[in-house]
Amino acid sequence: MQVQDFKSVVDKYRIVFFDAFGVLKSYNGLLPGIEKTFAYLADQGKEYYIVTNDASRSPKQLAESYHKMGLYAIDQDRIVSSGMLAKEYLDLKVNEGIVAYLGTQNSAHYIDSSGLHTLPVSAINQQNMHNVSALVLLDDEGYNWFDDLNKTVNILRKKTIPAIVANTDNIYPLSGSNEVSIAIGGIATMIESIVGKRFLRFGKPDSQIFMFAYDLIRERMSVSKREILMVGDTLHTDIIGGNKFGLDTVLVLSGNTLPDDAETRIRSTGILPTYVCESAVV
Amino acid sequence: MQVQDFKSVVDKYRIVFFDAFGVLKSYNGLLPGIEKTFAYLADQGKEYYIVTNDASRSPKQLAESYHKMGLYAIDQDRIVSSGMLAKEYLDLKVNEGIVAYLGTQNSAHYIDSSGLHTLPVSAINQQNMHNVSALVLLDDEGYNWFDDLNKTVNILRKKTIPAIVANTDNIYPLSGSNEVSIAIGGIATMIESIVGKRFLRFGKPDSQIFMFAYDLIRERMSVSKREILMVGDTLHTDIIGGNKFGLDTVLVLSGNTLPDDAETRIRSTGILPTYVCESAVV
Amino acid sequence: MQVQDFKSVVDKYRIVFFDAFGVLKSYNGLLPGIEKTFAYLADQGKEYYIVTNDASRSPKQLAESYHKMGLYAIDQDRIVSSGMLAKEYLDLKVNEGIVAYLGTQNSAHYIDSSGLHTLPVSAINQQNMHNVSALVLLDDEGYNWFDDLNKTVNILRKKTIPAIVANTDNIYPLSGSNEVSIAIGGIATMIESIVGKRFLRFGKPDSQIFMFAYDLIRERMSVSKREILMVGDTLHTDIIGGNKFGLDTVLVLSGNTLPDDAETRIRSTGILPTYVCESAVV
Amino acid sequence: MQVQDFKSVVDKYRIVFFDAFGVLKSYNGLLPGIEKTFAYLADQGKEYYIVTNDASRSPKQLAESYHKMGLYAIDQDRIVSSGMLAKEYLDLKVNEGIVAYLGTQNSAHYIDSSGLHTLPVSAINQQNMHNVSALVLLDDEGYNWFDDLNKTVNILRKKTIPAIVANTDNIYPLSGSNEVSIAIGGIATMIESIVGKRFLRFGKPDSQIFMFAYDLIRERMSVSKREILMVGDTLHTDIIGGNKFGLDTVLVLSGNTLPDDAETRIRSTGILPTYVCESAVV
Repeated sequence: MQVQDFKSVVDKYRIVFFDAFGVLKSYNGLLPGIEKTFAYLADQGKEYYIVTNDASRSPKQLAESYHKMGLYAIDQDRIVSSGMLAKEYLDLKVNEGIVAYLGTQNSAHYIDSSGLHTLPVSAINQQNMHNVSALVLLDDEGYNWFDDLNKTVNILRKKTIPAIVANTDNIYPLSGSNEVSIAIGGIATMIESIVGKRFLRFGKPDSQIFMFAYDLIRERMSVSKREILMVGDTLHTDIIGGNKFGLDTVLVLSGNTLPDDAETRIRSTGILPTYVCESAVV
Repeated sequence: MQVQDFKSVVDKYRIVFFDAFGVLKSYNGLLPGIEKTFAYLADQGKEYYIVTNDASRSPKQLAESYHKMGLYAIDQDRIVSSGMLAKEYLDLKVNEGIVAYLGTQNSAHYIDSSGLHTLPVSAINQQNMHNVSALVLLDDEGYNWFDDLNKTVNILRKKTIPAIVANTDNIYPLSGSNEVSIAIGGIATMIESIVGKRFLRFGKPDSQIFMFAYDLIRERMSVSKREILMVGDTLHTDIIGGNKFGLDTVLVLSGNTLPDDAETRIRSTGILPTYVCESAVV
Repeated sequence: MQVQDFKSVVDKYRIVFFDAFGVLKSYNGLLPGIEKTFAYLADQGKEYYIVTNDASRSPKQLAESYHKMGLYAIDQDRIVSSGMLAKEYLDLKVNEGIVAYLGTQNSAHYIDSSGLHTLPVSAINQQNMHNVSALVLLDDEGYNWFDDLNKTVNILRKKTIPAIVANTDNIYPLSGSNEVSIAIGGIATMIESIVGKRFLRFGKPDSQIFMFAYDLIRERMSVSKREILMVGDTLHTDIIGGNKFGLDTVLVLSGNTLPDDAETRIRSTGILPTYVCESAVV
Repeated sequence: MQVQDFKSVVDKYRIVFFDAFGVLKSYNGLLPGIEKTFAYLADQGKEYYIVTNDASRSPKQLAESYHKMGLYAIDQDRIVSSGMLAKEYLDLKVNEGIVAYLGTQNSAHYIDSSGLHTLPVSAINQQNMHNVSALVLLDDEGYNWFDDLNKTVNILRKKTIPAIVANTDNIYPLSGSNEVSIAIGGIATMIESIVGKRFLRFGKPDSQIFMFAYDLIRERMSVSKREILMVGDTLHTDIIGGNKFGLDTVLVLSGNTLPDDAETRIRSTGILPTYVCESAVV
């Protein structure tokens, strides 16, 4: 496995897609020096998008969080999140009734704005149950697991409605430690297997999120997939998803995949990045 | 599918193994008339055992719960529970250190009596973590899911210790309703898939629990598997497990498998009971 | 479950995507009367595409097979196949070396035209093994299963190369009977689980094939996903895939899903078509 | 990970269970020096059994193959194979009709002796289909995969009969090379997932095979599980199976688990042998 210089890799492409966690952000804030990368991209006239499995906040709020950390290059028009796909699905396919959700009020606020009536699973009862037309799994926080996961199982046993998973990740790292938390994607897998129904899952590695970003860039310019580079720290989401969509891919060693493990993991999974770089810092 | 008379089926065997929930007990207490079955068995000189996926209480406490409901035929020596297998594993294989558990104090009390030091997952901390030598998933109650399931994931990521699931059921029915609760087996599947490690699972359909009952009966008399009948309400645990162990099996339609669904389910799963009966009441 | 008239459903949309097998073709040739549907679509000025999991032949050959059966409305520009996606992947991502394949010469001929050197798995040996840069699973016919499936396992154990599945179906119906054959997607699942590596799977329900068709139509006209109807006979591919892509969907009862089973299957899988129609004949 | 001396480990136990492949036999015949181990066991008055996932031959034939290689210590009474469990199942549970099989004539000869009428899948036709009462997957050789695996799928779609897998291994090593072959367990997984039915699987890690050996030894002497040591080269069968049955276990590094990988695999799977030894040679 040859580790290459990120700048020399980026030089071969017109457009760069970045994963967020483990690539731009570390557990303790921005990855040191990452602002140089965006200065370089601006200088070279290259386009970029953030392609992230995140349904906890709106793209606007996500952009603001980068600005607070001092990275102003990332505005909301450059963010594509799995939450946006869940929102598009609800806009297109769910036209009436209550959308029950597992997550924080904040995460629901974003999908709420599409005009649907959202209610936390905890607020579903015998009276309004008949009106529930979809169930969305947004976030692992904002509710009582024992009460609301059991309630979710019972809602899905009784009603034949679409169940949407807005972030397919199983775990996420906690700040300032090597501890992790169970993410909503892990919870979704448990409930799916218990009720025996198929959920709709949005986010990498599924190609729909890449297509969403690809459509955004094509609105501005004519572009071939050959001109796009996907940068990520996770083989099972960023790299296999980018590959399958037809993009060249960079595995960076600043996040989930440790330098010592990278070669073994590539060989054992058969998921092959086009390049391996230490980080996305130029 | 021919539904047969339970008495005429039982008459062909010397020994009967009964599942508990859905066979002897319904959501609202004892299955009406089930005491006649045990009177008949006593009268005919037939032996019987209760073979149950339950790790929430000791066999003694389980027996007492039958006595309270008025069924005195079931004493603790006739109960084989998945909790007993977990306990035997700990007795044989875990010789020192702390056994961390998810469950009620009551469930832990039973495995505790084997001389090991048990602590709830919530009581594991930086100081005693190095001493944890096994983790047992006993029950879905008795702890805070958000805090303790996340903690369990982190313990199992850090430590290479056996993780024991003392009840493989995914759900259990709630009293007096057609609602269900997520059982510890469902939680175990989620945590197993998140940490990527293999757990040790005790209970039907695994043959070890049948062997445990078979050994008990062989201590008293010489018996062939041909003389034993397994009675259960669930194809995926009682029936396939009994079949594989070499026993003849009865599917009763008083619990998980509804009369209208039985034939479809048998055909779609390929799990074939030797007989189908309405209930275990003679 | 309400069964609706296909014509009245189609009238609400500008563009129709059709699955092929079980929708346009039955086991014995064209679905009787299906030509009327295409006459109606032409008359009404509606656009249509065939979206099919098929990698056994090129779109040109697929179109010719419809012409031979007397359906001239389907030309190659209106066919989107999973084989096309596999071909696009190879074009974009595999630039040199040998592409080993499982399938007929005919299926390989199509991907071959992209300039890559294709060789059947049976022709891979000690001398050319180092040159193999990808492996494609195209078809269940054209090779000796015992020899070549074993060889495929050994190639993938030794080489870290992308393995591409060009048709995700597990089985396909045989002509003139209710017998089925194992399809290449079923074989792929076995080999993937044996070698423990992740394969790249193209075809419904994955959204990439819908996006391919959507891109074709957008080249000709401005269109919203709301104006497109997906018609299919299989819940797990056509319906869930169409739904997730944001399209309205029709389940037709002329193929894999039998009229008697439809309601049960919808309820048990939670995969909800927008409409159910007897067939796609107007 | 501490590698211990096999003799000092064996000295702590009265009875030893050995896996065969990778423990007693290497790709090229007997493991050099293994005869010393059996001389030592005889000298010390220790008992031993071979516990092997093998349904290709009878215990008698397996014993003869050791004798031919010069190891006379292993007679047929000391061999417990997964084939024996499949045979016991058929003896106990299948009383009439045809048992269709996938495997060699030799593998069928063994189960045949139980008095049932066995026929290869290739000999099943419209005339005798109604008489087929069970299907057994014995071996990967002795039939045409394309014809007979497709036929097996169709038999199991039409008939609700037990399907028995007599060896759960996915692959087995080929002699004199580092190539492997797909074993009948791998084929079984594919067919099971295609037909959607539950198969009955016999062999390690399932506890039934350990119980079979345990029963044999208990017929001769009174013994506790604490006095038995299981020796194997594979974490997912020998070690987890032995552990769960309550036995102490030795992982030997002479077969499937390579010395360089052992520690990583133990940590990543959470499957913990009691001891690790270079080989089973004293």
